[in-house]
Amino acid sequence: MEEKLKRVTLLDTSNIENLKNMLGKALNDGRTLLIVGACSADYIGRARSELTIGDRILIIKSDRSVLLHRPRSYKPVNWQPSGSIVNISSKEGRLVIKCIRERPRETLIVKFSEIYTAAILNLEDEGVFSLYASEEDMRKAILKNPDIVEEGLKPVSFERPVTSGFIDIEAIDKNGNIVVIEIKRRTADIDTALQLARYVKDLEKIKGVGKVRGIVVAPRATTEFKRLARSLGIEFKPLSPKRCLEILYGTEEKREITLDEFIS
Amino acid sequence: MEEKLKRVTLLDTSNIENLKNMLGKALNDGRTLLIVGACSADYIGRARSELTIGDRILIIKSDRSVLLHRPRSYKPVNWQPSGSIVNISSKEGRLVIKCIRERPRETLIVKFSEIYTAAILNLEDEGVFSLYASEEDMRKAILKNPDIVEEGLKPVSFERPVTSGFIDIEAIDKNGNIVVIEIKRRTADIDTALQLARYVKDLEKIKGVGKVRGIVVAPRATTEFKRLARSLGIEFKPLSPKRCLEILYGTEEKREITLDEFIS
Repeated sequence: MEEKLKRVTLLDTSNIENLKNMLGKALNDGRTLLIVGACSADYIGRARSELTIGDRILIIKSDRSVLLHRPRSYKPVNWQPSGSIVNISSKEGRLVIKCIRERPRETLIVKFSEIYTAAILNLEDEGVFSLYASEEDMRKAILKNPDIVEEGLKPVSFERPVTSGFIDIEAIDKNGNIVVIEIKRRTADIDTALQLARYVKDLEKIKGVGKVRGIVVAPRATTEFKRLARSLGIEFKPLSPKRCLEILYGTEEKREITLDEFIS
Repeated sequence: MEEKLKRVTLLDTSNIENLKNMLGKALNDGRTLLIVGACSADYIGRARSELTIGDRILIIKSDRSVLLHRPRSYKPVNWQPSGSIVNISSKEGRLVIKCIRERPRETLIVKFSEIYTAAILNLEDEGVFSLYASEEDMRKAILKNPDIVEEGLKPVSFERPVTSGFIDIEAIDKNGNIVVIEIKRRTADIDTALQLARYVKDLEKIKGVGKVRGIVVAPRATTEFKRLARSLGIEFKPLSPKRCLEILYGTEEKREITLDEFIS
């Protein structure tokens, strides 16, 4: 029981046969393997690579994704995605780890000439990863690509100070109307509508024009907001923070690595 | 001296103050740090992320690139590129590691509630990483983007069997001429020229046309090749295997992460 609960089990690296067996068993039991040692690595698949001997960190995760790290760079020098077939063997007293990805066919072979540390990790991780965009991110995304709010929209300023506060974005629509945009990263509510109505009034006064359009940009809005917005003549444009992050930092539809990532 | 040569030094994790000091000193000495433990992680920068507690592997490399790995996925859940400012401290008996990237400003804070293993790695890695493209990669790249050989070129077949062997690529140029392409991933030499001359003859016979063009595609050619090619009427187009890999797998000019990579 004690052994079962242990998070890190350091292995005796003096006997390669035993080590090989213990690592193989641990992998079958869904453990993560961590090996620090001197190794070479050969990859053949979509291209071919050779890495001559040096000290590295090899991680084989419980989902059989594989990472080989040199002492420099955040990028692994070689790797395989999850679901790889991992075969651990010994050859002439050396530990040999073969990782095969089936489609596309890619094979990574790591040969250890010396092992400094080998450990079995029994990691429990039910943690939740949450990614957020700020209102500033949303503003930047709209300034970068105003069409996500409305086709033909042209921003003319942001964070413009007026009597009631700061206007997130001031823009001109395709018909030449002045537009005030108020951004919320969460739900738009009554206060949002009232705030924007004040900005619209402020700008109508400054510009001396009869009608300035007001648009609230937010992922969603309350029913009360919608009712009030209608009576105030305020518009609503749904936009998710996630979409804004995609606009700012791009989205990688295909999971394929790029050459640059591959060279590392 | 013994201590200096040791590749892996496992640290006593019972005293956080001592641990903090030893890790900090090792980092200053250009070592790589490896910590396995239960931690949470907060990131703020181009976006914002939160990761609730769970067991993870933290690697801080000698170039101060930082990787936080969960037990699944080849992608780190959080990371910082090399050159980050890494600050190791303790707060209420817990190890806190703050990693700051200056431009763009990004901060990653990892808080350990428990440490299973902490190690200082003194890795020596002068290994050479070489990436190769095969002739098949080069052929695929040309088929994908024939303009790299000649503008307006249209491939019609590949690996076509003729009397003397297999034609790498058969194509039609923009003027309607038949073209035979012979690919070499290394230096084109006399044999390459003679081989292609035979394919050209074979195809002229099959097609019953007076003139089929022959082009050798290779990263470079010998002087003898060039002399012979001239007298045989064979052309040469320099093309590097690296360029072919870029065409096949893309090149990532900007090192910025994509959202997808970031979410991991």
